[in-house]
Amino acid sequence: MAAQSNLAAVLHGIGDLRIEEHPMPVPGPHEVVVEIRSVGICGSDVHYYEHGRIGDYVVNAPMVLGHESSGVVVDAGTSSLAVGQRVAIEPGVPCGHCEQCRRGTYNLCPDVVFFATPPVHGSLAHYVAVHEAFAHPVPDSMSDDAAALIEPLSVGLWANQKAGTGIGSRVLVTGAGPIGVLCALTARAAGAGWVGLADVHPARLKVASTFDIDDVIDAREGKDYADFEPDVLLECSGAAPVVTAGIKALKPLGTAVLVGMGASAEQSLPVATIQSRELTVTGTFRYAHTYPDAIALVASGRIDLDALVGATLPLSDSEAALKMGQTDPSVLKTVVRVQE
Amino acid sequence: MAAQSNLAAVLHGIGDLRIEEHPMPVPGPHEVVVEIRSVGICGSDVHYYEHGRIGDYVVNAPMVLGHESSGVVVDAGTSSLAVGQRVAIEPGVPCGHCEQCRRGTYNLCPDVVFFATPPVHGSLAHYVAVHEAFAHPVPDSMSDDAAALIEPLSVGLWANQKAGTGIGSRVLVTGAGPIGVLCALTARAAGAGWVGLADVHPARLKVASTFDIDDVIDAREGKDYADFEPDVLLECSGAAPVVTAGIKALKPLGTAVLVGMGASAEQSLPVATIQSRELTVTGTFRYAHTYPDAIALVASGRIDLDALVGATLPLSDSEAALKMGQTDPSVLKTVVRVQE
Amino acid sequence: MAAQSNLAAVLHGIGDLRIEEHPMPVPGPHEVVVEIRSVGICGSDVHYYEHGRIGDYVVNAPMVLGHESSGVVVDAGTSSLAVGQRVAIEPGVPCGHCEQCRRGTYNLCPDVVFFATPPVHGSLAHYVAVHEAFAHPVPDSMSDDAAALIEPLSVGLWANQKAGTGIGSRVLVTGAGPIGVLCALTARAAGAGWVGLADVHPARLKVASTFDIDDVIDAREGKDYADFEPDVLLECSGAAPVVTAGIKALKPLGTAVLVGMGASAEQSLPVATIQSRELTVTGTFRYAHTYPDAIALVASGRIDLDALVGATLPLSDSEAALKMGQTDPSVLKTVVRVQE
Amino acid sequence: MAAQSNLAAVLHGIGDLRIEEHPMPVPGPHEVVVEIRSVGICGSDVHYYEHGRIGDYVVNAPMVLGHESSGVVVDAGTSSLAVGQRVAIEPGVPCGHCEQCRRGTYNLCPDVVFFATPPVHGSLAHYVAVHEAFAHPVPDSMSDDAAALIEPLSVGLWANQKAGTGIGSRVLVTGAGPIGVLCALTARAAGAGWVGLADVHPARLKVASTFDIDDVIDAREGKDYADFEPDVLLECSGAAPVVTAGIKALKPLGTAVLVGMGASAEQSLPVATIQSRELTVTGTFRYAHTYPDAIALVASGRIDLDALVGATLPLSDSEAALKMGQTDPSVLKTVVRVQE
Repeated sequence: MAAQSNLAAVLHGIGDLRIEEHPMPVPGPHEVVVEIRSVGICGSDVHYYEHGRIGDYVVNAPMVLGHESSGVVVDAGTSSLAVGQRVAIEPGVPCGHCEQCRRGTYNLCPDVVFFATPPVHGSLAHYVAVHEAFAHPVPDSMSDDAAALIEPLSVGLWANQKAGTGIGSRVLVTGAGPIGVLCALTARAAGAGWVGLADVHPARLKVASTFDIDDVIDAREGKDYADFEPDVLLECSGAAPVVTAGIKALKPLGTAVLVGMGASAEQSLPVATIQSRELTVTGTFRYAHTYPDAIALVASGRIDLDALVGATLPLSDSEAALKMGQTDPSVLKTVVRVQE
Repeated sequence: MAAQSNLAAVLHGIGDLRIEEHPMPVPGPHEVVVEIRSVGICGSDVHYYEHGRIGDYVVNAPMVLGHESSGVVVDAGTSSLAVGQRVAIEPGVPCGHCEQCRRGTYNLCPDVVFFATPPVHGSLAHYVAVHEAFAHPVPDSMSDDAAALIEPLSVGLWANQKAGTGIGSRVLVTGAGPIGVLCALTARAAGAGWVGLADVHPARLKVASTFDIDDVIDAREGKDYADFEPDVLLECSGAAPVVTAGIKALKPLGTAVLVGMGASAEQSLPVATIQSRELTVTGTFRYAHTYPDAIALVASGRIDLDALVGATLPLSDSEAALKMGQTDPSVLKTVVRVQE
Repeated sequence: MAAQSNLAAVLHGIGDLRIEEHPMPVPGPHEVVVEIRSVGICGSDVHYYEHGRIGDYVVNAPMVLGHESSGVVVDAGTSSLAVGQRVAIEPGVPCGHCEQCRRGTYNLCPDVVFFATPPVHGSLAHYVAVHEAFAHPVPDSMSDDAAALIEPLSVGLWANQKAGTGIGSRVLVTGAGPIGVLCALTARAAGAGWVGLADVHPARLKVASTFDIDDVIDAREGKDYADFEPDVLLECSGAAPVVTAGIKALKPLGTAVLVGMGASAEQSLPVATIQSRELTVTGTFRYAHTYPDAIALVASGRIDLDALVGATLPLSDSEAALKMGQTDPSVLKTVVRVQE
Repeated sequence: MAAQSNLAAVLHGIGDLRIEEHPMPVPGPHEVVVEIRSVGICGSDVHYYEHGRIGDYVVNAPMVLGHESSGVVVDAGTSSLAVGQRVAIEPGVPCGHCEQCRRGTYNLCPDVVFFATPPVHGSLAHYVAVHEAFAHPVPDSMSDDAAALIEPLSVGLWANQKAGTGIGSRVLVTGAGPIGVLCALTARAAGAGWVGLADVHPARLKVASTFDIDDVIDAREGKDYADFEPDVLLECSGAAPVVTAGIKALKPLGTAVLVGMGASAEQSLPVATIQSRELTVTGTFRYAHTYPDAIALVASGRIDLDALVGATLPLSDSEAALKMGQTDPSVLKTVVRVQE
């Protein structure tokens, strides 16, 4: 590998993103070097850019953004991967030794190293090093953009697994951002009998209506979600009133999965309803073991990730990519084509 | 059956309990008549006596109290039960036809007929009629009192089943009333590796310490429940701060079961913790299919229900029985011996 | 309802099928009368026709065949169904009172009354009476034939539920008859990452290849199923060597569901493999609670049942319908259009 | 640590066990050195001694026997354990990197290194090195013998977890050797409503009757197990007729766990019964994550492992220990006190 330069999108402070040289990654044991192709912009990237922090995670030093990424192996190290292998990169590498890792629930590893979560650098760069087990091969039929979006798809897949979505499930998704749409598409791919996607933003509703979802619900119209008799709620808005309305709409023994993060650590929930209907409320934190399944879903045509991509920009326009949500709210997902 | 008289404890209004004649039950199809022996006093009986209502359930007409009951079959009707069979009476008979009944989750039947839930009369009477399938035979080795307390034991058993308590579980129970104690004893019987029972009332803590529970915790001492590393919370106090503290103490992937009813329909819950640890929060509404298992647990000596009985009174002293919690807080469970 | 005549296909003995008058059904409590439209021919119908028995079930008296049926409500009785409602008929009505019924596992009810299982008459007739809860409404967009085939789809759906098929599952189906094809299509609808369907009959393989299945496997070619790394086996052939080969192909912790009935009650299974890989082997007996979900799957376009119908015949040609498997093995499913 | 000598019981060939010097263990990374105290004799040790092999595992070179062991940490290496810590040793250390390890099902790791499984040396020695995560601390209240028997208890615990034994389960255990007894005791500790233990050997039946098991069944008397209405079978005999009889006795939806290894890789099973009752048949291979739970069960007094120990012998009498099953069949478990 003769590459000398490793341009990256580095956040230096609130609203201060610079495209600059970043040290070439030096692969450690079990690591490979990947030449990055596509990086999806996530709400967390935008949040760090706009606020310099997410909760307790504070950007105190320059940090490369980006964690939804795909690329090509250029240095296979001692791994079983081949140089030239196209991969989707799982952005969090757990310690492998703690109780959670030993039990297979590695998303809850307290020592996970996760791209673009301070102080760990992200993957919005020409090259990154990654543990071989987290560089997942993708077939040639899958685009670079789709391979990058295996990451948010994993969030949707995990939410549906937590919910137990299966054949005949009636799934209400609240919040029609990229995660909400992917939750809905995954529910459909899992055999849900009905999938509804609700939001209040006209632009989002319009985009949502282009997907194969049974009902796109304009939540401003005051429709009672209970009329749809959902038994699963995948809550992707994080808005407290939506959480409450969604839970109250569930059928007895239904399950609510809180995916979206709320503004405050505590929220009022309809406890009496949870008890009288024996509902289950849980939440998701990232995902575990989802990549191979998510790749299979996309490779077999069950979910079309390219349809989510509303804008593509070169690395040099990364700042514009971060602002795309404001510039054009009809863009569901922006992808940075790093090598363009 | 030559009985002519059916004395019962009838609530006529707040604080107005009368021991008076009640119509002899006429068994319908599939029903048997049971001569009641023991009736445990439940907090709901006390609440109706003191307040005339529980939430939307209002005592608008005279109502017989009591739903924790045992007795002897005196008219077997067309059932397969024998006259003379001692039985524990499951107090709620579902419709048998709705979706919940067909799926086996009959505790959620919207048309259930439940003893001493307005306008349905209870079983604090000399005789009641009950569906044969809900008159569960008990062995001669089991006392009448214990047979009556199969009802609250069912609540504890159901809570543990919802929680998935099993071998090695670390179970924190908050609230050391009868339900809390029974949740704790059931957890132990289910193989829990550690069981803790927390409360703030000295009398309750003293009673709790007489049972085989690993830690009886004085919650006034500010101990952090997290130090016990519970993976199950069985919340029996209904107090919002306790619910929050209990949930926050859970290990990742832990489960909280809300058993106790709170003062308000909505409560603030630590949503961010639920998400970051992928906790599960659920609640219980009565129980289903628990009676045979609960009877087996007691019959085989794994749980001693008689040890909960702190006072026994004749039917004529039913009012004193309802006031026992105030009179002597060291009495965990009061039983009315109906035929005495 | 002015109907006077109720023609039916009545089996009088081996190879002796007569289209003759059968008593008009008189609806009992909770029953409706359905004018039958489509009846799928099942292997069990053929087996009774050819052998006069299936195991312990012997046709000792004339019996109407057929149990995969759809129609229109013509007498709604006291039900909530409307006259004119098109319905898919669930052919087995359980007792509603036994332990299995109370627990919701009504397919295991020992007293179930099931169409065309001696001595119960089937539905290959102009009119049948059926319990309202087992006459499932279907939307107008669903054909009569598809509504009839909700029955075999239920078998496939139940098999997948037992198997826990979900997103990313790798499902091997052995035996490419109608049940095998429906198992495969349901697996795909449930999000399976890979679905393979194996058989040895060229005609069946050819038909199978017209469906959206990842791999149609010619089992005569000696391919090792383990190469596909299945974690689910849905065994629909009943052939002992296939059962063994299928189980041995499973990945550790995989699940085998035995759907097809074998020639003998006992079969040799690879027990050492079951132990060393901790495999799960189970079987299915009919299905429970599947109709609404199966209807939703078809109504929403996720599964196309009409594509299975290779031949349609009028009631008068019922005998030809029973012989279709021999006449033309490329016909996957034959449907009798009763009113034609 | 000043130890110079490491006496061990080394199997040189069939019937050729020698107490001789074995190299002192040199701890690798993450390993500690344990001074062994108690080692339980397992049937596999006896089998290697008598036959030189178990299936494909052949003793081709001298091998230290023993894998049920406890001891004291004498060299803590870089671990968090303290010198002097008493530990129960989990005898199989998985690779930590394969799919099974990553998913938490490490007992199925194909590269596990397991004591006294050729060519890996066992722990019937004065000193062994072991990975710190597999040296589980035990409280001072637990005897060395009990700590050693955490290993077979883990087998019983795992079997019950696979079976889903819980409150009210009716558990039939077939085969009253040490594993059968531990399966039964664990079932009881998990809240089983009934536990039966069946065997044909008078000595074993007599020993079994000393434990708190609901029914000890003399299988020679031709009793039909179905009379006990078991819903769980824990099969510990490996005898094909017993497997079949046990499965046929199960209630609908029951579960059979095959723990005992049979004489042949394939066995005839009652497939028609498995299907018509929708039974589940599975097997166990060792265990995973059981040690902490098993230690908690014993430490809290729920299971008394010392009661299983029928004979204790010094290391010098290891050969007599291996022959104890023949010498005195009333000895359920023999323990070698290594330092005596």
